[in-house]
Amino acid sequence: MADNFSDMNLFFYPRSIAVLGASENLSSFGTRYLQALTNFGYKGRIFAVNRSGNVVLGHDIYRSVLDLPDRVDLAVISVPARFAPDALRDCLRAGIKAAIILGSGFSETDSDEGRNLEDELLTITRQGIRLMGPNCFGTYSPGGRLTIIPGQRFPVESGGIGLITQSGQLSEIIVGRSAGEGIRFSRVASFGNACDINESDLLDYLFHDSETKVVSAYLEGVRQGRRFFDIVRENSKKKPTVIWKAGLTSAGSAAAKSHTGSLAGSINVWSAFFRQTSAIQVSGMEELIDTMIGFSCLPEGCGTRVGLVSGGGAGAVIGADICERTGLQMPPLPSDIKNKLRAILPASGTAINNPLDLGVPHQKPDVFTAVLESVAAGDNVDVIVIRRVFFSEKLSQIFSDSAGSSAEELKTLLNVPIEIKKRSGKPVVVILAEELSGVNDLELEKERREIRDFFFKNRIPVFPTEARAFKAIANMAKYHYSCL
Amino acid sequence: MADNFSDMNLFFYPRSIAVLGASENLSSFGTRYLQALTNFGYKGRIFAVNRSGNVVLGHDIYRSVLDLPDRVDLAVISVPARFAPDALRDCLRAGIKAAIILGSGFSETDSDEGRNLEDELLTITRQGIRLMGPNCFGTYSPGGRLTIIPGQRFPVESGGIGLITQSGQLSEIIVGRSAGEGIRFSRVASFGNACDINESDLLDYLFHDSETKVVSAYLEGVRQGRRFFDIVRENSKKKPTVIWKAGLTSAGSAAAKSHTGSLAGSINVWSAFFRQTSAIQVSGMEELIDTMIGFSCLPEGCGTRVGLVSGGGAGAVIGADICERTGLQMPPLPSDIKNKLRAILPASGTAINNPLDLGVPHQKPDVFTAVLESVAAGDNVDVIVIRRVFFSEKLSQIFSDSAGSSAEELKTLLNVPIEIKKRSGKPVVVILAEELSGVNDLELEKERREIRDFFFKNRIPVFPTEARAFKAIANMAKYHYSCL
Repeated sequence: MADNFSDMNLFFYPRSIAVLGASENLSSFGTRYLQALTNFGYKGRIFAVNRSGNVVLGHDIYRSVLDLPDRVDLAVISVPARFAPDALRDCLRAGIKAAIILGSGFSETDSDEGRNLEDELLTITRQGIRLMGPNCFGTYSPGGRLTIIPGQRFPVESGGIGLITQSGQLSEIIVGRSAGEGIRFSRVASFGNACDINESDLLDYLFHDSETKVVSAYLEGVRQGRRFFDIVRENSKKKPTVIWKAGLTSAGSAAAKSHTGSLAGSINVWSAFFRQTSAIQVSGMEELIDTMIGFSCLPEGCGTRVGLVSGGGAGAVIGADICERTGLQMPPLPSDIKNKLRAILPASGTAINNPLDLGVPHQKPDVFTAVLESVAAGDNVDVIVIRRVFFSEKLSQIFSDSAGSSAEELKTLLNVPIEIKKRSGKPVVVILAEELSGVNDLELEKERREIRDFFFKNRIPVFPTEARAFKAIANMAKYHYSCL
Repeated sequence: MADNFSDMNLFFYPRSIAVLGASENLSSFGTRYLQALTNFGYKGRIFAVNRSGNVVLGHDIYRSVLDLPDRVDLAVISVPARFAPDALRDCLRAGIKAAIILGSGFSETDSDEGRNLEDELLTITRQGIRLMGPNCFGTYSPGGRLTIIPGQRFPVESGGIGLITQSGQLSEIIVGRSAGEGIRFSRVASFGNACDINESDLLDYLFHDSETKVVSAYLEGVRQGRRFFDIVRENSKKKPTVIWKAGLTSAGSAAAKSHTGSLAGSINVWSAFFRQTSAIQVSGMEELIDTMIGFSCLPEGCGTRVGLVSGGGAGAVIGADICERTGLQMPPLPSDIKNKLRAILPASGTAINNPLDLGVPHQKPDVFTAVLESVAAGDNVDVIVIRRVFFSEKLSQIFSDSAGSSAEELKTLLNVPIEIKKRSGKPVVVILAEELSGVNDLELEKERREIRDFFFKNRIPVFPTEARAFKAIANMAKYHYSCL
């Protein structure tokens, strides 16, 4: 374990990096990697290596890794596939212990040539160098200040989510999209064909890394089935583990073979895996991100009994439908709480029940506080979900009273869920839908994102739809209480 | 039938409207309705009626509908529930044939008082006035230039989608959100408690209305089961019919009772209904909107055999998984087409298959044209789906070559799907995901919406995720070919 940890750590916290294949061609992978590294603010020493010997992006070029003046922790190799074994051999000779091969043209091509090249790489690694890839984007490590090629704009702040993905593009998409949802990562690895370093090495590392609080993975296939199973079974009880296993259909399995040369495995094997470990299975990108949001904002989880507070009746019906389909409950409110609510809300247009229909989306702070307080007081409610309440001034103007709410009132309203969460000790979840999506409605969308960010900052998870919110809550409950 | 048609038409094309309950109170429902009507540009004559007799929003106030100087087509009533029967009686006496009651406080309250009031309303209607509501938002009819209260910003252009919904708020949300997705409506009715006019009256009307090409409905319960079944069975073969039946879970059914006083019915009954009619069942707002998009842009439908062209490999795997789960097929490309593609695309980083992995999201127009042309030439492909190809300049800059694509190249690229659709006669579908969703990424979102609108204008349907695209395609196929 200790060996694996320090081996893997070189890929996330290298003190120096050699980039093989950086050249005058600014669109070459090597050069772009060099550029991303510099722009992202890597603090260690960088060595650019290329046979040509010219200067690239202000870096002196070395003709070979064997000429480097100093010890190097990590080599990032971007040369045509046929030259990759020689490059890796040079790194081994230079005493480098960790290498990433970015380019493709190996086993994923399903050609003898590609397979042979990858076999050759594997043979070299056995002599004392660990290899990530080939056919990958490498690592994103905010703490180590290194990033994947398309990750120049990724957040520089660290967070608690560790992610490994066989797909480079998914590392780019998942980090990019979830950054907007308040998610921050400890370490991300795109490990491609998994020729040497595979999912088990990386998961073992993340499970033992104290900065990583939640372990997540996008997998197309698994190299060492038994080891993978043992590692996940042993550790997923202690650290929440979220796995998106792709390629479980016959069409997906064939595509996985072409993408990362993976054998996808059967649905039955994977169902058994999820039954026998505490890992949470998710089935798509939205669910993966939403479950990350859940674990980020509701670290202790929440139960399955939802109190739904809805600014309108149809949403209450829809919400109830989805809640039940997701396996959650919406227990009836106790009669003393119903009586309290009857004294607070008008009789007409509302429905004093669970789901609770407030009648309209625009709410006054004092009424809203009293309502949420009453719902939260219910012994049979674990989590309060708020939908279609207008926290936005512009929305309020478009859809509500011509009178509308004042900016101050809305500011106070925004703090109500946070206050209720504090006072009741129960988690509060907010659903904020995109209301209008025309090209002229961007101001509304800006306001929505600002409100979302405000809630995330205060550890109130925000989701765009009922379905996504309830699925995330259900996944939390499944993990923390082994129910559903 | 003819009678029902002209009765219903008064609610969408009235030549004059009386608003009962408009007052000096600018936030009252009646006054807001009056304001919405004026702002939306209603062309007919408007009469404001209120016992007070003061001027409201520049309109002379009449003390009673019996004092009106002219014949009135439609009365919109916004008075407290207990005064509603008298107001409706006055309208009947004044010879008005159509009335909408906006307010709540009737059968949906589950009180004797509310039920009795609604019964009284029903009795009055039998003497010769049709009633929509109570507990509703009324009608949105771009052609008739009238709109629901929160619909001042709705599009003034007409389209081919007819929508009826028991929920007022859903009429507001569905029209608002789908407007951004290029959907335009012929007529929308929020009909609330369905005391007199129910789903069958309205569906019958929409089926016979030539402007309406697709009939859609959000239903919580059904008043006249047999009539509803007969109307939908007879007409849904001729006109695509999309129904979102809410309240099918026990929690949802209870909520529906409180919301519109509806008896939701059992899952078994509804399954039988969908089996025995050609109506398409959808299970949520996204699917409803996506299916509307499908029928708007692919009026002849498309088959079930998808050719997926993906700017990256993970998307190909994910897409293949979702495609198969949705019941669609991704047939292997014929070998002559594979050979053609091998000559066009680089060997490394791509996968010449279906799904076709282009390797990277940034494409040159000539290569992209040649690729799509080859895929479209396959006899076994009915529809071409494109995912994660960068049509956006900003995206291209963030994620691609530092070199990037020129603005002109991107403009040409945007026209490629349109060209291919024209030349091949096969539908082309584009998936445009939100790539980054931070508050500082709004320029990207603006560009995404512009690109989306451009495609919609050219009848290329656009969806934000693979799952939503494939579900819409599957619903088209289900309707047009009765398969799946």
